[in-house]
Amino acid sequence: MYDRMQELNLAQMTKIHDASMELLKTTGIVVNEDEGLEIFKKHGYRVEGKTVFPTEEQIRKAIASVPPKFTIEARDPAKNVIIGEDDFAFFPGYGAPYIISPEGEQREATMEDYDTFCKLIQTSKYLDMNGWMMVEPADMPPSTVHMDMMLSNMLLCDKPFMGSPASREGALDGIEMASILWGGRDSIADKTVSISLINSLSPLQFAEEMVGSLIELARNNQACIVASLIMAGASGPVTLAGVLALQNAEILTGIALAQLVREGAPVVYGSTSSAMDMKTGALSIGAPELSKNVNYTAQMARFYNMPSRSGGGLTDALYPDAQAGAESALALYTAARNGVNVILHACGILGSYIAMSFEKFLIDEEVCGMVRQMLKPIDITDESIDIDMISTVGPGGQYLTHPKTFKLCRTEFFLPDLMARTNYDAWSAGGKKKVHEIADDQLSSRLAKYEKPDIDPGIEKELTEYVNKRKNG
Amino acid sequence: MYDRMQELNLAQMTKIHDASMELLKTTGIVVNEDEGLEIFKKHGYRVEGKTVFPTEEQIRKAIASVPPKFTIEARDPAKNVIIGEDDFAFFPGYGAPYIISPEGEQREATMEDYDTFCKLIQTSKYLDMNGWMMVEPADMPPSTVHMDMMLSNMLLCDKPFMGSPASREGALDGIEMASILWGGRDSIADKTVSISLINSLSPLQFAEEMVGSLIELARNNQACIVASLIMAGASGPVTLAGVLALQNAEILTGIALAQLVREGAPVVYGSTSSAMDMKTGALSIGAPELSKNVNYTAQMARFYNMPSRSGGGLTDALYPDAQAGAESALALYTAARNGVNVILHACGILGSYIAMSFEKFLIDEEVCGMVRQMLKPIDITDESIDIDMISTVGPGGQYLTHPKTFKLCRTEFFLPDLMARTNYDAWSAGGKKKVHEIADDQLSSRLAKYEKPDIDPGIEKELTEYVNKRKNG
Repeated sequence: MYDRMQELNLAQMTKIHDASMELLKTTGIVVNEDEGLEIFKKHGYRVEGKTVFPTEEQIRKAIASVPPKFTIEARDPAKNVIIGEDDFAFFPGYGAPYIISPEGEQREATMEDYDTFCKLIQTSKYLDMNGWMMVEPADMPPSTVHMDMMLSNMLLCDKPFMGSPASREGALDGIEMASILWGGRDSIADKTVSISLINSLSPLQFAEEMVGSLIELARNNQACIVASLIMAGASGPVTLAGVLALQNAEILTGIALAQLVREGAPVVYGSTSSAMDMKTGALSIGAPELSKNVNYTAQMARFYNMPSRSGGGLTDALYPDAQAGAESALALYTAARNGVNVILHACGILGSYIAMSFEKFLIDEEVCGMVRQMLKPIDITDESIDIDMISTVGPGGQYLTHPKTFKLCRTEFFLPDLMARTNYDAWSAGGKKKVHEIADDQLSSRLAKYEKPDIDPGIEKELTEYVNKRKNG
Repeated sequence: MYDRMQELNLAQMTKIHDASMELLKTTGIVVNEDEGLEIFKKHGYRVEGKTVFPTEEQIRKAIASVPPKFTIEARDPAKNVIIGEDDFAFFPGYGAPYIISPEGEQREATMEDYDTFCKLIQTSKYLDMNGWMMVEPADMPPSTVHMDMMLSNMLLCDKPFMGSPASREGALDGIEMASILWGGRDSIADKTVSISLINSLSPLQFAEEMVGSLIELARNNQACIVASLIMAGASGPVTLAGVLALQNAEILTGIALAQLVREGAPVVYGSTSSAMDMKTGALSIGAPELSKNVNYTAQMARFYNMPSRSGGGLTDALYPDAQAGAESALALYTAARNGVNVILHACGILGSYIAMSFEKFLIDEEVCGMVRQMLKPIDITDESIDIDMISTVGPGGQYLTHPKTFKLCRTEFFLPDLMARTNYDAWSAGGKKKVHEIADDQLSSRLAKYEKPDIDPGIEKELTEYVNKRKNG
């Protein structure tokens, strides 16, 4: 359809592809992990020290086995999530060390906060997936917190979840725990029950933990998002074209490695590259450049016939104000409209990833619902047009009391839980509440509705014992 | 390009068209204005009482002369605005009776407020057009306020402006004043120097003042937006398909009349139809149904090869909070991406059109800038990719101090005036300001920068005298 957001033509996409291939062949990419290097060597890639120099032929051969679409299975099959092609899924925010309170105070996040997010996701009408490290709990030992988070993911919510990519060991913990949850290693041998985020270290590097995780996850058929998060002008070129070429080289190398480990391993082509703010030198994720990059990243993923991932409700604002609303809506809607499959950070993020906010989470969640409604196909039939009704109502008539209005208003119209539609008098009488105050008010009643999903008590015990044993071992 | 927002196929658009034609032929449309009825009769349309029954052939013949693109001329030709095809223009909010203050107090708007909006538009980097009745000044006599507003439009700003569609007499006042501004009636005889908003009265009616204005404006080659603003479930069908058919019948009738008055008169196919809120029975313009309608309205306008108009930064929120930010961004971005040409209400609206807010105006304006940046085409060339630079920086290097970053950062990156990109400490040190507080802070310095554009003192005198004479006459 007509769209003012520019489409890349084949020549442009090929130019980006060619530039990435040239970079990989001549400059190479540093892989700081021994098994990763060994796997590349074994498949005939040129490796010098820690630098791998993939050829175009090698990359093309490896990525040929990427599935364009796969399913992440949930304990409740009705909650399975399909990743790829026309489907899309909303994931919560990821990686925030802090919580920003309704008063605008920043504090370290706790395990209780993490659990609260799991409960919000379980009760969410619009979020499809449970996340990972929605916040980094500061009150738990860092070396084992990944298991605490995984346990909460598994016990507090029965939606499919993101996995632990903290390290090779962390990834293996996640796989072990998933085996317990699903009734043994065999039961998940060919099943995908988690998806994990593997980031490159731009420019042109992969860190040890990320490669170790990627190898174990791919080996066990658990999905990996391989993503670049280049800050244009700092960890990558100032031009968007340069960023696209650089991130493409990185992403394809990670995806190739996953395919070398296990042909057909589920992977996603990801990016949240954005711009540096020229005043502060910091990353800006509210910048329009982020959405521009999302547009082109989604197109490059389709060029390779792979699922794509981008950011969602992203903002630089430190409070759920109009800036947070506008920036987050622009980024989320761009991702959804442009065909991104994994929309990470759909809910909750403030301050360029530094914090999550419960109020922002609820606001973003409603925006997810609105965006779904906006993208819902229209039904154009004689019945939906209904000329007879329009004729009968006639010039100057009204439709309010027409039976069809009563019958269809709940399916035709989006019904907000949060967004106000009152007049000034009613708003004044209610204390002139802003939407973040309404969200704050709703939080406790929302959590009161939460019910822990059923789980076999034996499995719950075994999972808890696994975590305790590993913590004490 | 791939877009999850659904495209209508030819069969669907034809079905909507056919339904509209059937409605016009059988049910007809009420035109509450004598000259309008005469014009239809003169061209052989069946007229019974005040109801006109256009045939498909008559409509097709009339709309064949609609120009797909036209220019609204400004006093400064560098500020001319092109309406149609790939171009788009941001217009300010329209028709609000109230101002909502930074404290959330609603008060009646004044002439001083109107003038302030003219000054903001004159100093705006992103708004292309001056508006009309951005607010309704309550401190001026209602019968002549249209001339006060027109005088402000002409004297305080040299961007092209919207015209006065208040009544036939009001439209003629606008034309007379434009003649003075441009140096005589002859000098605007074939020129378009204003664009006015002509609304239908759904369902299937046109009010007397609107038809009178339309006739005079079209006769004088001044552009008219013919628009429906159906509230689905109240003044139109509950289904979007029904709304599209009904509004199409209304819009095409208005556009046909303009063409019967003057073949080739510049017109725009417009709609801000949206949903009724089922809880309050009031119009919701923050509803996702508004954006869905924008999508299909733009497509129907292209079906007829006409310029299109929709709403812009629309919200039901009564305060510039996160709801206002999100709803406004979704609607504005939908309009811009979907190919709408006239994006009315781009800035300032709160509370379902009830009020304008100066702070909201500045926030929306920056979103306009962001959206423009998002839609700016990408440059993919060997130079913009620059493999050599990426190779030279190499794995683990940095681009911050690279000369190219210095050279291009100001053109590659959007530089916000308002949106915060600070960290928590800096934000705290600055008093934890929300974006609407920053906007409030910036308002006075923005207005301090305003300079009244030069105008021939004789013309200014003549314009002022015209208004005074008409007021006393």
